[in-house]
Amino acid sequence: MQVLKTIAALQTFICNAKRQQQTIGFVPTMGALHDGHLTLAKAAREEHDIAIMSVFVNPTQFGPNEDFDAYPRDLARDVALATSVGVDAIFAPSVAEMYPHDGGIRLHAGRQATMLCGASRPGHFDGVLQVVAKLFHLVQPDVAYFGQKDAQQVAIIETMVRDFNFPVVIRSVPIVREDDGLAKSSRNMYLTETERVEAPQLYAALQLAKDVLLNTHHVEKAIDAATAHITTHTTGRIDYIEVLSYPDLAPVDDSTTQVVLALAVYIGKTRLIDNLMINLGGN
Amino acid sequence: MQVLKTIAALQTFICNAKRQQQTIGFVPTMGALHDGHLTLAKAAREEHDIAIMSVFVNPTQFGPNEDFDAYPRDLARDVALATSVGVDAIFAPSVAEMYPHDGGIRLHAGRQATMLCGASRPGHFDGVLQVVAKLFHLVQPDVAYFGQKDAQQVAIIETMVRDFNFPVVIRSVPIVREDDGLAKSSRNMYLTETERVEAPQLYAALQLAKDVLLNTHHVEKAIDAATAHITTHTTGRIDYIEVLSYPDLAPVDDSTTQVVLALAVYIGKTRLIDNLMINLGGN
Repeated sequence: MQVLKTIAALQTFICNAKRQQQTIGFVPTMGALHDGHLTLAKAAREEHDIAIMSVFVNPTQFGPNEDFDAYPRDLARDVALATSVGVDAIFAPSVAEMYPHDGGIRLHAGRQATMLCGASRPGHFDGVLQVVAKLFHLVQPDVAYFGQKDAQQVAIIETMVRDFNFPVVIRSVPIVREDDGLAKSSRNMYLTETERVEAPQLYAALQLAKDVLLNTHHVEKAIDAATAHITTHTTGRIDYIEVLSYPDLAPVDDSTTQVVLALAVYIGKTRLIDNLMINLGGN
Repeated sequence: MQVLKTIAALQTFICNAKRQQQTIGFVPTMGALHDGHLTLAKAAREEHDIAIMSVFVNPTQFGPNEDFDAYPRDLARDVALATSVGVDAIFAPSVAEMYPHDGGIRLHAGRQATMLCGASRPGHFDGVLQVVAKLFHLVQPDVAYFGQKDAQQVAIIETMVRDFNFPVVIRSVPIVREDDGLAKSSRNMYLTETERVEAPQLYAALQLAKDVLLNTHHVEKAIDAATAHITTHTTGRIDYIEVLSYPDLAPVDDSTTQVVLALAVYIGKTRLIDNLMINLGGN
């Protein structure tokens, strides 16, 4: 396992791999690895000659009042975990290494980024696209792996790859959950013991809403059911609970077949997100 | 010579070249080829295993009142000219092939794009970056060649490549001129006979201004000299005459060493641009 801290070191590594015609599977992360990330890394490991992971807490996707400074960082732990699943190299650059200049050119996400998390995190997905575009150009992967937990992120990145013809395939991997249903997240470590007890109710609310949606085909009733469940069973503050077509993230209509049922809820100070993909059947 | 009209055909071509570890030199154009383009193509031909040219009049870089519809198109002529200098393949897609979807994601150029041509062509450089990013992802060239006549375009593309870590080297090639000094341009064919007689005065004005700038180190005096020359010797309407640091396109100050002296002038209905790169010496 190599830990590459500079772009120059990464380029040497990639250049060697390309010269040997090796395929590259890439897992971009912000570190604080959990089983979700490791599932992505295992897929990259199994499906490619080279598995590369990046560990970079990207400042441009955090808002001014978000948790950039507090975001957990422990590279030694991340390296050990990545090594345990056979990752060949970790690219772990500094902020200065990734953003040495600023010529002011920006990627702006479109309508998809105004929905769900985008409504309360203006500019977040612009920052995600910026760092993902940079990482794709640096790593030049054949396939990049993302967790379906960030369903909106996956949808927007897939749109960028499609509309800008990036020579990479995006693979999204189902959410990995704790035994009690809580979606694995680096931010779960922010939860107090009592908050941690409440947190699985988000998944329970999603499952309840899914049943309502499949039985009634009525979006508002599904959302109301999830809202009632969370209000009753947690102290959480709901940011949003929505049902949108996927991957275009538009309001559901008669022609919609695939939807994402997604929520963001503050449990104490910690903002948790979760979602379910639901097939509404052929129409 | 292959003419590739679809992305699928291009990808097959590129994939073969990459598998054989061939280097790729790329010349993006809007067609209506002239000696300037062919100089770029010759450089690509000499320096790489494969020389690819694109011919695509990109709608997203034209404003609503600009000459997108009127822009000269003659693929058979372009193919013959490209063949004559040894280009291996021309990628000539339709608009529908290049823009089949629109997820609304955009590249926005920064401060550099507010200067010079950007002031009167809002959104122009956003469209340039969009198509160049797409073409770079599709062609995956080792080196891409651009004419220094579009000095601002080169500066902004170099910034994008640097800040987004595109794995491509940008090479800019000096302006190719007619015997009387007029910079070669696809738009020169719009000129009437009398306008064509006037047009070389733009280059004469730049040379005069360069002398003034080097003698006085006074930007305003240089611009005044060029303005007076054009006003006296042509019927043209000046869009801008400016001296800016290069490549950052900022106002000249005591630390500036490299500048671009650039102008845009309407001769009749035809908007012509030209520039000189000037080294102000060490400071």
